[in-house]
Amino acid sequence: MTIPSADELALARASAHALWDRDLASRALGITLEEVRPGYARTAMTIVDTMVNGHATAHGGMLFTLADSTFALACNSRNVPNVALQCSISFVGAVRLGDRVVAEAQECSLKGRTGVYDVSLARDGETVALFRGVCYRVSGTVIGELPE
Amino acid sequence: MTIPSADELALARASAHALWDRDLASRALGITLEEVRPGYARTAMTIVDTMVNGHATAHGGMLFTLADSTFALACNSRNVPNVALQCSISFVGAVRLGDRVVAEAQECSLKGRTGVYDVSLARDGETVALFRGVCYRVSGTVIGELPE
Amino acid sequence: MTIPSADELALARASAHALWDRDLASRALGITLEEVRPGYARTAMTIVDTMVNGHATAHGGMLFTLADSTFALACNSRNVPNVALQCSISFVGAVRLGDRVVAEAQECSLKGRTGVYDVSLARDGETVALFRGVCYRVSGTVIGELPE
Amino acid sequence: MTIPSADELALARASAHALWDRDLASRALGITLEEVRPGYARTAMTIVDTMVNGHATAHGGMLFTLADSTFALACNSRNVPNVALQCSISFVGAVRLGDRVVAEAQECSLKGRTGVYDVSLARDGETVALFRGVCYRVSGTVIGELPE
Repeated sequence: MTIPSADELALARASAHALWDRDLASRALGITLEEVRPGYARTAMTIVDTMVNGHATAHGGMLFTLADSTFALACNSRNVPNVALQCSISFVGAVRLGDRVVAEAQECSLKGRTGVYDVSLARDGETVALFRGVCYRVSGTVIGELPE
Repeated sequence: MTIPSADELALARASAHALWDRDLASRALGITLEEVRPGYARTAMTIVDTMVNGHATAHGGMLFTLADSTFALACNSRNVPNVALQCSISFVGAVRLGDRVVAEAQECSLKGRTGVYDVSLARDGETVALFRGVCYRVSGTVIGELPE
Repeated sequence: MTIPSADELALARASAHALWDRDLASRALGITLEEVRPGYARTAMTIVDTMVNGHATAHGGMLFTLADSTFALACNSRNVPNVALQCSISFVGAVRLGDRVVAEAQECSLKGRTGVYDVSLARDGETVALFRGVCYRVSGTVIGELPE
Repeated sequence: MTIPSADELALARASAHALWDRDLASRALGITLEEVRPGYARTAMTIVDTMVNGHATAHGGMLFTLADSTFALACNSRNVPNVALQCSISFVGAVRLGDRVVAEAQECSLKGRTGVYDVSLARDGETVALFRGVCYRVSGTVIGELPE
């Protein structure tokens, strides 16, 4: 990992806050923003009773939403707006009512107008889902104005 | 399309209702079950203010959740429980606050213990997202008991 | 399906031939170009002994290559060069030595600079693999010059 | 990384050799097996003139085949046969005629009958493609008999 400069870190935080302010969906689900750096973000969410289906198991869509929000934070962390083009998720462990899930997004590639990010979801350090997202850059900035 | 028998249709509906009763997440989002047949399901959801992010655009996670719930209905429509293993989604059109999105899930393959299902999401007949899900069969039944 | 004009069909064929002339890999595998229209292509390949692994089963990579080549024909059929960004494939049936596999690529979405295409692979009318590809447009033309 | 025992390493190597002996496709492409451990494999392939398309760029199918073969080695490294169910690949850098591509497969998850593996492809240490494969266990053993 390259160590980001103080300016890069400040820009990542300002970008994250601008994004987060507009993201009513993530806030409605109680997702918390834990850390952001250039190309990286960590968040957490606790499974409440409106997030489950049979057997008090977390709905796959809620886990995807957590991963997707974390992906968005990581790929917009340089004040350059990016939108998701294609995302995939593999479910590898059950998540239950009351579980706290931590999501970590990491940049795998950023070239030209497109990027690839991996997001792992874990409960108590055990991986429960693996997400990969492909994004592309749109015009504008993250801070101050809205992405196109 | 093979025309299902009355018994197959009744089983598909009973399976869907059993699944839906337990799916608090889908109901919390206001997803409505429109039609179910063996290997097929159609649902709808209206984008409300807790489902948007920047620019009053629907959060990708909310669209994924709609698709995933519809996939679950289709792949559990024969009273044989299946769980999602891997899902992917391509976002091809913007969805905004107030839009009604219709999801249609169709079985593409069902062999051995695994199945592949395509779900298309549309707004006013225009495709806005393309989802593909891979599931595998678990033991038990959908009706009466919960899938493992 | 919209019926293409004679000019659109001629452009699709000329684009396909330009692409095919440069695609040594597809020709080395004996892939044949059966039909091309705007946003559509059909090809075929017979599994020979250098395409198999254990149990005389076709290597997944050879099936992917057939699908990917067909995807390229479909997404380059308007003389506008596109390159693959992300592709996925689900293997749903075994293919064996001597089998002839037919691939059909169909445009699902084409908006802005990105497109989504589905390719189904079949042996004797039975689906053996389902491929989905996401591409994005690059500058130049397919005919006459090479895509960037 | 857990350090494998000498017995686990020997089993991984014997499994790889059994698999490789039957994989005519990988050998026809000149893929070389560099290292194998439980849940891990590294291979390499040089792009020759039957692997390129326009602009002397490697065909995506050839890169997928390299990744898929490496995935197979990693997910069959405990003498328990697994077959690929779903694979995806993101192309993030151009590969040209003469380039040597190194593939590394790493187990991300192995639970119940299913596993998830990541394969990165690199040229001179720079990532050119990211592959993810989902497999499921079949009956039998890798060594001595063929997977179902």
